[in-house]
Amino acid sequence: MGLSPPSGLLPVPGVRLASGAAGIRYRGRDDLVLVALDPGTVTAAVFTRNRFCAAPVQLAREHLARTAPRYWLINAGNANAGTGVAGLEAARVTCALVAERGGVAPEAVLPFSTGVIGEPLPVAPFAAALPDLFARLDGAGWEAAARAIMTTDTVPKAVSRQVAVAGRTVTITGMTKGAGMIRPDMATMLAFIATDAHIAPVALRPLLGRLVDDSFNRITVDGDTSTNDACVLAATGAAGVAPLEGPEAAAFEDALRAVFLHLAQAIVRDGEGATKFVTLRVSGARDRAEADAVAYTVAHSPLVKTALFASDPNWGRILAAVGRAPLPDLDLSRVDIRLGEVAVIRGGEPDPDYSEAAGQAAFAPAEIDIAIALGRGRAETVIWTTDLSHDYVRINAEYRT
Amino acid sequence: MGLSPPSGLLPVPGVRLASGAAGIRYRGRDDLVLVALDPGTVTAAVFTRNRFCAAPVQLAREHLARTAPRYWLINAGNANAGTGVAGLEAARVTCALVAERGGVAPEAVLPFSTGVIGEPLPVAPFAAALPDLFARLDGAGWEAAARAIMTTDTVPKAVSRQVAVAGRTVTITGMTKGAGMIRPDMATMLAFIATDAHIAPVALRPLLGRLVDDSFNRITVDGDTSTNDACVLAATGAAGVAPLEGPEAAAFEDALRAVFLHLAQAIVRDGEGATKFVTLRVSGARDRAEADAVAYTVAHSPLVKTALFASDPNWGRILAAVGRAPLPDLDLSRVDIRLGEVAVIRGGEPDPDYSEAAGQAAFAPAEIDIAIALGRGRAETVIWTTDLSHDYVRINAEYRT
Repeated sequence: MGLSPPSGLLPVPGVRLASGAAGIRYRGRDDLVLVALDPGTVTAAVFTRNRFCAAPVQLAREHLARTAPRYWLINAGNANAGTGVAGLEAARVTCALVAERGGVAPEAVLPFSTGVIGEPLPVAPFAAALPDLFARLDGAGWEAAARAIMTTDTVPKAVSRQVAVAGRTVTITGMTKGAGMIRPDMATMLAFIATDAHIAPVALRPLLGRLVDDSFNRITVDGDTSTNDACVLAATGAAGVAPLEGPEAAAFEDALRAVFLHLAQAIVRDGEGATKFVTLRVSGARDRAEADAVAYTVAHSPLVKTALFASDPNWGRILAAVGRAPLPDLDLSRVDIRLGEVAVIRGGEPDPDYSEAAGQAAFAPAEIDIAIALGRGRAETVIWTTDLSHDYVRINAEYRT
Repeated sequence: MGLSPPSGLLPVPGVRLASGAAGIRYRGRDDLVLVALDPGTVTAAVFTRNRFCAAPVQLAREHLARTAPRYWLINAGNANAGTGVAGLEAARVTCALVAERGGVAPEAVLPFSTGVIGEPLPVAPFAAALPDLFARLDGAGWEAAARAIMTTDTVPKAVSRQVAVAGRTVTITGMTKGAGMIRPDMATMLAFIATDAHIAPVALRPLLGRLVDDSFNRITVDGDTSTNDACVLAATGAAGVAPLEGPEAAAFEDALRAVFLHLAQAIVRDGEGATKFVTLRVSGARDRAEADAVAYTVAHSPLVKTALFASDPNWGRILAAVGRAPLPDLDLSRVDIRLGEVAVIRGGEPDPDYSEAAGQAAFAPAEIDIAIALGRGRAETVIWTTDLSHDYVRINAEYRT
């Protein structure tokens, strides 16, 4: 789906990374990442809202509330989810191992795990691998790290941007993993973004909230949510400028948003079995919650998704999904639907100029825009999703068997 | 999925049926059904809540509000949905054709259509076929009718029951169509049930509401709802007894419920691509709405459904779906999950006695029970659903192409 491995990734001053093959589950590939943050780094994070949340999520939340993180420890292959008290203890041990060697409090280590649910997390591989990782921490480690955190991902996903602030260059680099939004097995979406800008703690949390709401919270592959989702944003301050407090605030936030959007859309492009990248716009809603309700009802409809897979401009399925969205008093006679540039539905009925051939041409490309106008207000939303293919069923039916 | 064509269907005194090949879309098979109800018959109906509802649904609602129905007119192959003002006019013409020949007001005819969305409904085939149908109306026409209303169904679905009331025999016979709950293309679920009991209009509507709530409203294949769904219950009174007003009320309602359940479950068993028939029980909820919310979140999870297809006892996916259900303050540490007789999750964690082999044995059969206990109240629910298979994607991706 138009994804290639990242190139031109830039170090973020104040951030050093190392990856290694700890053999937690995979053989012959890196599966453990250590990220070291310079003192003074400010970190914010958001976690899965699934109540079935993994041990590392519970511990990372606890640690983040107590002190500023100095290390992130990320493993792939084992989610340490559904592992009970023993899983929480294993996560604590891995943090203690990093803390001891790094000379920080255990609370200064944030643990992240992604992989199979319900299997005990072995701590011995961490103990064996960490000395080497500490020895190899390096600002240039982003690409290897993006590769080491992959599970069912087919390609590493990372990106960098730079923006000028007060005459200096501020760098933003981020990486993410996830394919299938969101897959409880290989549980699932992790995103790590760092910048050398200085951002006050009081500003970083709402900033992360805005960015996630416009990016990772606007993608869906299958509507399922994970036990391990986390998105972390760190600001090291090494660039010596505080862009949010100056005239470049908007430009800086736009650059950050571009990184978040790139990473979030990369997850959709790498979606399990995906053959289509769909941008779904809903406008004319009374408020954004309404627009979202329609967008997700359409995006999660198996009938719409199989029609997308078939490149079949089956507007009846789209209209039926709009019709069952939980909106009070929705008047379908005011609804317009466009597929790309083609007007399909106007006022709830087929557009007089619509032809099946035009619809098929609009649905043929791998990247499709669907625009739904509700005609009842001024609010709108955009989300990104995929189709439902044979491969989605194959991947998810055959994963453990 | 354990379905065979119906046998032993019983006439319902006061109800006569005829089927014929009108050639509305299909060739070489019946596609039109006329059902005649004796004077005095009381009818109640429920229709799709999808706001994108078909012309016959709009017209049937309007007619039902005005007079007691004397005829049902059902066609397969064309849903007369998404057809605008012309579609409504076509539906009116077909009712007028029946009314003229039957000597009743047009409002005494209820139209039902199922089939492809968005194609004009031709009325000439109705005009040509109706004289023959009127000539062949017969109480024994249920099986042929159940076959004539099929679209993507693989087997006709109908059942009869009898119950003794006040020394007389009351008969209930019903038929339904639908495969893929609910499929906007072959839009979708129709159910017609008749009894010769006498039931007052004021009692029939709430009775139908209870029955549908316990049957057709508790099944899901893919979470999509149709533009044409309708369920109709007629009581002709020909048996001369009023069971709801006597001591046999419970036995009679149980017999009716058994018919509704049989028909609803037959739709799931005939579900598109279905290889599993899943009974999903959620107990220990604070109220039924909570129990339903959990049940449907699990039933609609593509990850749970693909695990069912793979006969993979992937409890992590079930627990993760429970964890994202919209329940306030859900405490997963009180959740138990059983697959058939096998305890899998106890108190939010794997049961100590659980083994993968036991789970696989429980997930292997074509009929699977999943029981989820929330541990926060006394309300419960049961719904029926299917897996998500390669064939579901194939059927829905290839339908129009």
